Amino acid sequence: MTKKSINIGMLGLGTVGSGVATILRENEKELTQRLGVSVRLSKVLVRDLDKQRNTTIDASLMTTNMADIIEDPSVDLIVEVMGGMEEARDAIEQALLSKKPVITANKDVMALHGHALLRLAEENKCDLYYEASVAGGIPIIRTLEDGLASDRISGIMGIVNGTTNYILTKMKEENWTYEEALTKAQELGFAEADPTSDVEGLDAARKMAILASLAFSMEVHLQDVAVNGMTNITSKDLELAEQFGYSVKMIGFAERDEEGVDVSVEPVFLASSHPLASVRNEYNAVYVYGDAVGETMFYGPGAGSMPTATSVVSDILAACRNLLLGVSGLRSHNPMNERCIKSEEEQHAQFFHRLLVKDEVGVFSELTSIYSKHHASLGSIIQRPGNQTDEAEVILITHRLSRKNHREIIEELEASTSVKEIISQYRVEGGERS
Amino acid sequence: MTKKSINIGMLGLGTVGSGVATILRENEKELTQRLGVSVRLSKVLVRDLDKQRNTTIDASLMTTNMADIIEDPSVDLIVEVMGGMEEARDAIEQALLSKKPVITANKDVMALHGHALLRLAEENKCDLYYEASVAGGIPIIRTLEDGLASDRISGIMGIVNGTTNYILTKMKEENWTYEEALTKAQELGFAEADPTSDVEGLDAARKMAILASLAFSMEVHLQDVAVNGMTNITSKDLELAEQFGYSVKMIGFAERDEEGVDVSVEPVFLASSHPLASVRNEYNAVYVYGDAVGETMFYGPGAGSMPTATSVVSDILAACRNLLLGVSGLRSHNPMNERCIKSEEEQHAQFFHRLLVKDEVGVFSELTSIYSKHHASLGSIIQRPGNQTDEAEVILITHRLSRKNHREIIEELEASTSVKEIISQYRVEGGERS
Repeated sequence: MTKKSINIGMLGLGTVGSGVATILRENEKELTQRLGVSVRLSKVLVRDLDKQRNTTIDASLMTTNMADIIEDPSVDLIVEVMGGMEEARDAIEQALLSKKPVITANKDVMALHGHALLRLAEENKCDLYYEASVAGGIPIIRTLEDGLASDRISGIMGIVNGTTNYILTKMKEENWTYEEALTKAQELGFAEADPTSDVEGLDAARKMAILASLAFSMEVHLQDVAVNGMTNITSKDLELAEQFGYSVKMIGFAERDEEGVDVSVEPVFLASSHPLASVRNEYNAVYVYGDAVGETMFYGPGAGSMPTATSVVSDILAACRNLLLGVSGLRSHNPMNERCIKSEEEQHAQFFHRLLVKDEVGVFSELTSIYSKHHASLGSIIQRPGNQTDEAEVILITHRLSRKNHREIIEELEASTSVKEIISQYRVEGGERS
Repeated sequence: MTKKSINIGMLGLGTVGSGVATILRENEKELTQRLGVSVRLSKVLVRDLDKQRNTTIDASLMTTNMADIIEDPSVDLIVEVMGGMEEARDAIEQALLSKKPVITANKDVMALHGHALLRLAEENKCDLYYEASVAGGIPIIRTLEDGLASDRISGIMGIVNGTTNYILTKMKEENWTYEEALTKAQELGFAEADPTSDVEGLDAARKMAILASLAFSMEVHLQDVAVNGMTNITSKDLELAEQFGYSVKMIGFAERDEEGVDVSVEPVFLASSHPLASVRNEYNAVYVYGDAVGETMFYGPGAGSMPTATSVVSDILAACRNLLLGVSGLRSHNPMNERCIKSEEEQHAQFFHRLLVKDEVGVFSELTSIYSKHHASLGSIIQRPGNQTDEAEVILITHRLSRKNHREIIEELEASTSVKEIISQYRVEGGERS
């Protein structure tokens, strides 16, 4: 392709879109030097032409009609930063069918439709890049695709939701309650008015489905991800974690061994010596374990206009380069491995339990027999007086056991008349890899 | 290029070379799937054919004659993992002149001759990749080249020498002396018998010259890097650092602003809250500050057979892909910016000084007048009794000042009869960026 400039059609001009426009403008000279041709925004889709915007984009470039952009033969490449689901997916599909490479920042679409869209991109010999869909400014997608491409990735642990990490950091460091921390995150603009998707782990689950698919070269679906939210975390839990040498973190796991793949998002007692334990505030980090490389970690801002836009524009650069070299869409994204998601019996982890029990003769041995019946051996067990004289608090840390056994233990504890309450339960992680 | 397999000629079969051979063998299936063709070691240069080796490489592939490999038209790509300087450089040069892409792990060659070799690669339309030359298994080169390509990098701070970081970690956590930690590092095999290059900062300086050149797209030479070693660090310094909220780390800096570029390697009092402060033992990490993305950090093993080999084989994959697509060497590595290295007057930093002074009337004011004469304002100053009754210890932390002023202060302190000894001096870093 011999061109003097590459024309970008951008769908959306919100937080990320404005950042993309800013970087394209401010780094215009460097980008042109890198590519040998200039890159310019030639059309921008907005919802409302009359809206007041703090942007230097010429109003004449804006349109409310998607077809104006996607069907325009002078537009070389589509940047989808409109968010949402069906409309965005349709747009990406249409763009690829029109043989235009697509850059998207849309984790929702990629988590649910990524496999189909990547196939479509390949069929149409177009790049489909999505670095910005996971962990904002951290170039984790290309690290898995290129930097660690020669290795066999066996595990990923990610702090991939900034809101929950911010809440946990402030609860620990400032002694704020969960509600105080959430309110502050909303004031600062990185928690949504409705924080459900963040605090219930759904946002992180989408990102983990994307990362697991890529790292294991397998179709991992969103519904394969076991999700537990963090709405029940208390300051007392954080204190206890610290006493045992752990930090409480919301962690996404993607693990594989010979038996299959296991992906989850859950609140975790993470060993304080683990590299992820020192990730504070709204920062994200992805810890990757490769058989040959060993431990690596990639840290940075997980959201925000400019960090996310950096990833989008880096993708634009890569896609432009491929366009210019005539090698767009020539890389296969076909999953190399058959789907093999572990069953509940095959998924193993270590757990922390905090129970409120009746302080009666025989209760302690009843408890321990529930655990041993379901093949859970205990690493630590501590009993101490409860708030009332007739109750005691029991804290247990198990060795690794299957999730099935763990579920059965929880069910039996819930049914037991000796157990007044399961106050909290956490996965435990970050000691030696087992 | 339509081929059924790509033939690799590897120069060297030491630590890294054996790792490369292992990964190519163990991940053969995945690598073939990724590329669509197989990759095989077709020739390996060794020094001694009769040496006993713990390898599965067929002896018939080995040769002691470099020309056998480089001049062999069936060899598609050269992997240089022999180490050393002149011979390795000649080999890379010859390979590029023979139009063969080159992958190297050689930081010495890249730090000194990288610019010339990258030009030669471009002239000959061949890729020259060198991911493994900096920070072993961390894909930092491609992160700077691709992942953060759209951003303007303004600062890099790197723990890029595992030996020194291991020594400092053990001195702090185990209370070992410098000598004990060094001896242990040598026993574990990651410090050389002659550790000069590590502990004097020369190894880190080479890596910082490579990173600075890439991040700033400028010819930064090894001699541009200001280097201070760590041989004078004492346990007392580490203790003091902790009291002030710092960790002692050997850090490579590469910074730029409108006035130019400043690259150094030195022992640093690093704020304990800084992401690099929690990098322990022999691990490496590169902290990158980009104008748009903000703070990012890339962490992993900085050396070792398999981690370094992971980077080499990832480079092999990228180079093979380009060969197959017919786009080898089509990316320009020409520095986009004119060389502009800051002078001593233009380089600014904060410093920590620990002085032993005479405990006499007027000494304290003499001291402070030396600092103010050279435009250094002081953030902290603490005086306390020395070991002997006639002496006092003074600890100072300056605000930012030029290196020229700093040098003049040190010279004047050394000349002063009131100052018995400059016990230690460190750069201070990691508070707010200024």
